[in-house]
Amino acid sequence: MLEPFFTPKSIAVIGASTSPGKLGYTVVENLVNGGYTGVGKVYPINPKADEILGLQVFPSVLKVPEPIELAVLVIPYMLVPDALRECGQKGIPAAIIITAGFREAGMEGLERERELMQIASEYGMRLVGPNCLGIIDTYTPMNASFSAGTPPSGPMAFMSQSGALGTAVLDWALAGRLGLSKFVSLGNKADVGETDLLKAWADDPNSKVIMIYVEGLPNGQEFIDTARVVGRKKPIVAVKSGVTQSGSRAVSSHTGSLAGSEQAYQAAFQQAGVIRATSMQNLFDIALALGYQPILKGDRIAIVTNAGGPGILATDALERSGMSLARFKNETIQKLMENLPDAASAANPVDVLGDARADRYRRAMQLVSEDPNVDGILVVLTPQAMTEIEATAQAVVELSRSIDKPIFGCFMGEARIQAGVEILEKGGVPNYGFPERAAIAFRAMSDYRSICNREEQDYVTFEVDRDVVREVIDRIRSEGRVTIGDAEARDIQTAYGLRIPESRLAASPDEAVKIASEIGYPVVLKIASPDILHKTDVGGVRVGLSNATELRDAYELMVYRAQRYIPDARIWGCQVQEMAPSGGLEILVGMNRDPQFGPLVTFGLGGIYVETLKDVTFRIAPFSYQEAEQMLKEIRSHALLDGVRGQPPVDKEAIIDTLLRVGQLVQDFPEIVELDINPLIVYPEGQGGISIDMRLVLSREPGTGESA
Amino acid sequence: MLEPFFTPKSIAVIGASTSPGKLGYTVVENLVNGGYTGVGKVYPINPKADEILGLQVFPSVLKVPEPIELAVLVIPYMLVPDALRECGQKGIPAAIIITAGFREAGMEGLERERELMQIASEYGMRLVGPNCLGIIDTYTPMNASFSAGTPPSGPMAFMSQSGALGTAVLDWALAGRLGLSKFVSLGNKADVGETDLLKAWADDPNSKVIMIYVEGLPNGQEFIDTARVVGRKKPIVAVKSGVTQSGSRAVSSHTGSLAGSEQAYQAAFQQAGVIRATSMQNLFDIALALGYQPILKGDRIAIVTNAGGPGILATDALERSGMSLARFKNETIQKLMENLPDAASAANPVDVLGDARADRYRRAMQLVSEDPNVDGILVVLTPQAMTEIEATAQAVVELSRSIDKPIFGCFMGEARIQAGVEILEKGGVPNYGFPERAAIAFRAMSDYRSICNREEQDYVTFEVDRDVVREVIDRIRSEGRVTIGDAEARDIQTAYGLRIPESRLAASPDEAVKIASEIGYPVVLKIASPDILHKTDVGGVRVGLSNATELRDAYELMVYRAQRYIPDARIWGCQVQEMAPSGGLEILVGMNRDPQFGPLVTFGLGGIYVETLKDVTFRIAPFSYQEAEQMLKEIRSHALLDGVRGQPPVDKEAIIDTLLRVGQLVQDFPEIVELDINPLIVYPEGQGGISIDMRLVLSREPGTGESA
Repeated sequence: MLEPFFTPKSIAVIGASTSPGKLGYTVVENLVNGGYTGVGKVYPINPKADEILGLQVFPSVLKVPEPIELAVLVIPYMLVPDALRECGQKGIPAAIIITAGFREAGMEGLERERELMQIASEYGMRLVGPNCLGIIDTYTPMNASFSAGTPPSGPMAFMSQSGALGTAVLDWALAGRLGLSKFVSLGNKADVGETDLLKAWADDPNSKVIMIYVEGLPNGQEFIDTARVVGRKKPIVAVKSGVTQSGSRAVSSHTGSLAGSEQAYQAAFQQAGVIRATSMQNLFDIALALGYQPILKGDRIAIVTNAGGPGILATDALERSGMSLARFKNETIQKLMENLPDAASAANPVDVLGDARADRYRRAMQLVSEDPNVDGILVVLTPQAMTEIEATAQAVVELSRSIDKPIFGCFMGEARIQAGVEILEKGGVPNYGFPERAAIAFRAMSDYRSICNREEQDYVTFEVDRDVVREVIDRIRSEGRVTIGDAEARDIQTAYGLRIPESRLAASPDEAVKIASEIGYPVVLKIASPDILHKTDVGGVRVGLSNATELRDAYELMVYRAQRYIPDARIWGCQVQEMAPSGGLEILVGMNRDPQFGPLVTFGLGGIYVETLKDVTFRIAPFSYQEAEQMLKEIRSHALLDGVRGQPPVDKEAIIDTLLRVGQLVQDFPEIVELDINPLIVYPEGQGGISIDMRLVLSREPGTGESA
Repeated sequence: MLEPFFTPKSIAVIGASTSPGKLGYTVVENLVNGGYTGVGKVYPINPKADEILGLQVFPSVLKVPEPIELAVLVIPYMLVPDALRECGQKGIPAAIIITAGFREAGMEGLERERELMQIASEYGMRLVGPNCLGIIDTYTPMNASFSAGTPPSGPMAFMSQSGALGTAVLDWALAGRLGLSKFVSLGNKADVGETDLLKAWADDPNSKVIMIYVEGLPNGQEFIDTARVVGRKKPIVAVKSGVTQSGSRAVSSHTGSLAGSEQAYQAAFQQAGVIRATSMQNLFDIALALGYQPILKGDRIAIVTNAGGPGILATDALERSGMSLARFKNETIQKLMENLPDAASAANPVDVLGDARADRYRRAMQLVSEDPNVDGILVVLTPQAMTEIEATAQAVVELSRSIDKPIFGCFMGEARIQAGVEILEKGGVPNYGFPERAAIAFRAMSDYRSICNREEQDYVTFEVDRDVVREVIDRIRSEGRVTIGDAEARDIQTAYGLRIPESRLAASPDEAVKIASEIGYPVVLKIASPDILHKTDVGGVRVGLSNATELRDAYELMVYRAQRYIPDARIWGCQVQEMAPSGGLEILVGMNRDPQFGPLVTFGLGGIYVETLKDVTFRIAPFSYQEAEQMLKEIRSHALLDGVRGQPPVDKEAIIDTLLRVGQLVQDFPEIVELDINPLIVYPEGQGGISIDMRLVLSREPGTGESA
């Protein structure tokens, strides 16, 4: 569907210029020098010129006698709408709008951008941009951008929301640091965005890795759904910048104070199977590994080095990244000992010694590569007096071609090693100047293996009573409220199958005693009034009432006080409530609605673990049973769930069940913008959990996640 | 004292060779090409040659008619002792032994190395090496190494335990990435080590930063003491490699299981005021900032960028590193608006826009540099169509020379930006290809400011009764034990002023009742026997005894059971002990003796915080009052000390007091190899703490830290 952007048969450059240095000239120049004129037709459009770089110029796309598949617009923004309309009339299916001055330029610009979108939709045209650098496809080949030069071909497809960052990426590519299959500067993303490109590139045979620089993802859920599918076909590596705030809504829940945009992206990328790079350098390092080297089948890495110190650095770095040092088979060690000098180390890291020439490196690398306990190889080289840097690089490249295990260089230094590094890079072996970068790349390969091997996910849907919740919410709204009362919370939880303490309304002390005798002592007593939000402030909560006398006294005192402090309050009586048995663990389950990704569900241990240690984890609903299970393992204090200091393990299924039911609730009702169950008390295995208190905030607009 | 290693008047190269490519040739060649022959005399020593590179060769140092100040030995290891003895006879004060085959080559090698040390001490000679690359001083100038070329001069002094890593560092230097004042490959450190060089370089005017690559520091305490002094004169940046284990001793305490070599280095570097780099790249990035740029006086950084995306990346990176974005004065914003196009951002990050040429960059940088709210500047550049890369670099360098604030480049890309980066580097402005590297460098500058501004430290010494502890320890040893009993622990704690529960020995039930009536109920009862280590296993501990009857019953049952289960046990009676009041917070204070740095004292909250969350921090004793205070702030759960959920703040002074007293105890008695006070119960402010249980393990050798 997006083919015209990458493999058009003909291209019009609207705003083509005759003056070298102008963008309208550079675009034509790039199409010519980038090789496109060898495979397709270029029509420069300019009412005031005849010929540019040997190409015939037309005054308008409407005057071009043949069909056009792609238009590139490099004209002042005032002229864009008319030109775009002409493209529509001409039947051009795709347009790249390089011109700036739209959404990024304030309200008027946004209006202009909306106009473009209208025109495009009127003619069924797709747009990339506005305010972008353009598109490059090195395999077509086509350079429809104003980049400085055309990058070399390679297995990496790159999309960037920032054009400027794109220029830096191209500059790295031009220096031979990476090869690109496709390059798209997305600009303002008026139409085509990240999700469209993911779909378009999923089956592109020239793109082995998809790299993304992203600042924001307005349709976060769609991105997750798409990436989840595409990411199993080829790795997606993304770097996200920007510490955007989650809107201006005042945050009133625990979860709200813990869950920000950063947490939402973290959860989204994890659920979507997107490998998250923490920096641009990281993005390249990881993409190079995934783009040029075979799959890493396990986490056992062999190091071959000509020096002890860097070998230790590499060991440290690998272990810190969660990789492990391969333990060689005895046979391998035996052969290494036979092939290396006595002083060399035949254990991992293999130290071939400072005087190692290329042949010794070659033998050692060959031997470790044959060991079935080795999944990947890191070749560390320091430029010592006898070191044959280029020949060693050559040996690495040759080995790389003959084995099905990833191999990286870590040639350290710069002046003397440069030529060797070029041999490695040209040969498809990434070189990382420092061991920690190689370790991070190995780790990302390992993560990608986990993404591919992810088990089938179970998305559970519980039988619930939506109508009850619908009614409750409508009633609350009709009263102009956004927060809920105790009884409403009880109704909602019951409707969604969450276990809550048994509780009944007593209109008199006698009735309270009757209820308590049925529920069983001790009980909790709470004032029941729609007008009293902060019950404890007026003595409206008493716990541990253990007999009829205590209960009666508490009831009368509670009602008396409530009436005295809030004379206008409507008092319905008191709730008599089952007391949660002791011996449970306090858990927090919450939700905060993220403006980009939707419901962000939180899990953590309650009390100080949440308040002080902020030890929580997140998922975007809907999430699977397996993901809920995973959440329990992610908190730092997860050992407490398994029981410490002689405690039995808690009922994890009860927690997972609660997480999934809450996930379903907040998906079914987008008007719930915040939710806290705090605490959910969870008992030992098999004994379930009980939700003691649920708070919930609704949006003011019915049926939307827009904030109150 | 080490001057002959850096500024000798004459040098003998023992093992000088006539064959290019041999180390003995390269050393002479480096002395000649590195410029030394212009300032001093070089005497090649070789019984079989007449002339090397135009220099007269002597058969032995003893045949050289003039005095020699430095000898460089590049001969096979068998010949080294005799040659070194001749150096002694000749009165040469310093020798660099490049030759390998010593300690690193096993037991025999270690013997050979000991022989060298004996010879050196006999003649009062100092040694660098063996098994090293040599020494370079670019200001002398002298290249007494077998490096490939001589690095450019600069403000950085580098010492490395790994010669190979040294070759990589030199290669970076040769590529113009950094300038070195001194380069020392320390090799096996038979004599001269890191501490010696720190002292020697403290007042060297050519060295603005000291860089260290270290694998181990055998005299850790001396290193800390020296670095603490030197680090206030000039920054010391170190990278430590190697996940060495803390010896083979089986670890029996909590603290032991938490405290490893890594924790010891972390504490040591912090106490010593050494900036710790996490990788080699990090080491260079930080050293460049500190070496070439002025002091960072505050943490407020201004960003000037020609693109939004990288500006956001830089903002993220700075905030993640703990730096803050400068808030400009209104005046600055006003002037920026006047000097920049309308679409530009005059707030921080200042976006000068994609079409910014050098002059616009220059104006913006100048204006932000004049703002008193700006402490440092980061200039981000992406190579866009109109960008004047070199001219902008020139503008950055010029500004850098005129202001007293650090300024870094973050020119992103490679091919086109290269020339600009060279201008920056030649002009003393570090360029970081990725914003996060610049952020880490700023952070290190900020840390260095804190190191320099550290307040005067108070090293407290308490009045204690050492004799009591001496006696107790001697008694334990005389009985062949390494662990202590209850009463012994009480004596030791009392002698060092630690508060413990009141406790007295009762020889009969009657006596127990009498004691309890004085101490006050409830009490704890514990069996008193030197032969029963695991009291609880034989029912030898009862808590919460609240009256005479309970106490009597417990006493009789306890003694009866003890006798029944361990018939041979000597039973002294039972301890009647004060029960610690409830309402306190459990704290762990411990110590584990590190083989390199000595007593490593631990602090953390007790219970699950230690066991599950491993939330602890460390210092090497002796540490100051301020450092103990700092420990309390370093744990993740530190908020609990201030009181959460309505709890009052705990008595922090009591914790600090305990840490300092334990520090003093373990310093006074090196035979204590492990110690745990777990728990120390601490009460609200002003109410002190009480040590409930202390365990302690002694070494088998009297007066040493050697393990049991």
